[in-house]
Amino acid sequence: MSDFHDAAKGGLSAGQLEAVLRQVGAERYHNRHPYHHKMISGALSKAELQAWALNRYCYQAVIPRKDATILARAEDPAFRAAWRKRIEDHDGDDGWSGGIARWLHLATSLGLDAEAVKSERLALPATRFAVEAYVSFCADRTLFEAVASSLTEMFSPVIIGERVPAMLAKYDYVTEDTLAYFTRRPEQAARDADFALAYVLKGADTPERQQQAIDALAFKCDILWAMLDALQHAYGEGGNIPPGAFRPETAK
Amino acid sequence: MSDFHDAAKGGLSAGQLEAVLRQVGAERYHNRHPYHHKMISGALSKAELQAWALNRYCYQAVIPRKDATILARAEDPAFRAAWRKRIEDHDGDDGWSGGIARWLHLATSLGLDAEAVKSERLALPATRFAVEAYVSFCADRTLFEAVASSLTEMFSPVIIGERVPAMLAKYDYVTEDTLAYFTRRPEQAARDADFALAYVLKGADTPERQQQAIDALAFKCDILWAMLDALQHAYGEGGNIPPGAFRPETAK
Repeated sequence: MSDFHDAAKGGLSAGQLEAVLRQVGAERYHNRHPYHHKMISGALSKAELQAWALNRYCYQAVIPRKDATILARAEDPAFRAAWRKRIEDHDGDDGWSGGIARWLHLATSLGLDAEAVKSERLALPATRFAVEAYVSFCADRTLFEAVASSLTEMFSPVIIGERVPAMLAKYDYVTEDTLAYFTRRPEQAARDADFALAYVLKGADTPERQQQAIDALAFKCDILWAMLDALQHAYGEGGNIPPGAFRPETAK
Repeated sequence: MSDFHDAAKGGLSAGQLEAVLRQVGAERYHNRHPYHHKMISGALSKAELQAWALNRYCYQAVIPRKDATILARAEDPAFRAAWRKRIEDHDGDDGWSGGIARWLHLATSLGLDAEAVKSERLALPATRFAVEAYVSFCADRTLFEAVASSLTEMFSPVIIGERVPAMLAKYDYVTEDTLAYFTRRPEQAARDADFALAYVLKGADTPERQQQAIDALAFKCDILWAMLDALQHAYGEGGNIPPGAFRPETAK
């Protein structure tokens, strides 16, 4: 396991910086997490899949607010025009015809009640804290760091490519309709990641900013990792569900 | 397990509200958590105690900023004069002669390096997210809710009373000097909890505000619970230490 805390010491070329960023993803993106491995091996219970869908909803639901936070800080109209596509992707034309609605469909296809999911009341507190930390990061750090934290999307096509065929093959109650969310994501993520990577590589013109980009990406990997840690702890082994959170046996 | 989400429906007397708040603590305070039970039974490894001390440091270190956040929102000089004692308790006269310094001493007495602890670099991301959520809550919610979230201190003398004698009895490397932090805390916590409880009971003059007080206390219990969940998951069972976090075998 690498320590990336001084990876930019002495300065990097754009190509070297991109290589370090890809190394952060290779070591810390959540396709390395045991919960993901268990998911694609077909070993998650339906309750564990429900808990994943219900908690991940909180992340999906906050993404447009995260992106609006970034939009609100961007002074360049061309940047804003590119970035606002992310909000359109997730909200759709009317708020409920984009990615959030498709994630909700995924959750209800797994047997969860739509209102219970949307209320977010049954999500793990650790999920809420992680999601909130992501929005706060994008509000409190520099615009450059906020953009760099989005670079986990560079690795999103990989995890989707692992997840979708495995889920279709291993869980008889999971259909292509269940997973419709993922159909458009690789293309959107690739477009967004290309834009963000070009922005970061261009803007990382000092060792300090290069290190900020690396740290921001590692931070975002921590967010996604912590969300799966919380699921694994609560639902995956031993049943350590915290007070007030989703309990499969009383699932509505 | 009670659901406190509509506990104030229809309105409560001050005595009834206090009883509900105490019930929240009885069900959700972190003296109910398995990691605490393991601690007082003497079953934690030294590495698990180190991880606890190192992660909890992040919480201790942020408390004066949390209290300053509350202070900054308080318009009543008498309230501020009472509340600022909390900052004095944790920072001491010169910043390093109060509770934070005593917690650092606890951590170094367990064999951790002071600079490593103070840097917070090796803490679990989930710890950071939980601690940050607490500060954000006190900045973003009403002053009333921020004060109510501090009411976990009502239960702090209980957990300290369980923790200190058990640790002295069960771990031969833990001495009274190690645990000096806890000597003054029960008295300080009782003073602070009395003040905050009186403030909350007086201010909770509608069912809505009563519910806010209950929710704020449950939220704070979630913070403390999530911190122990993260420790238990990473260090307590199976060894699920996330990338970049404290690894006992390489502890400085």
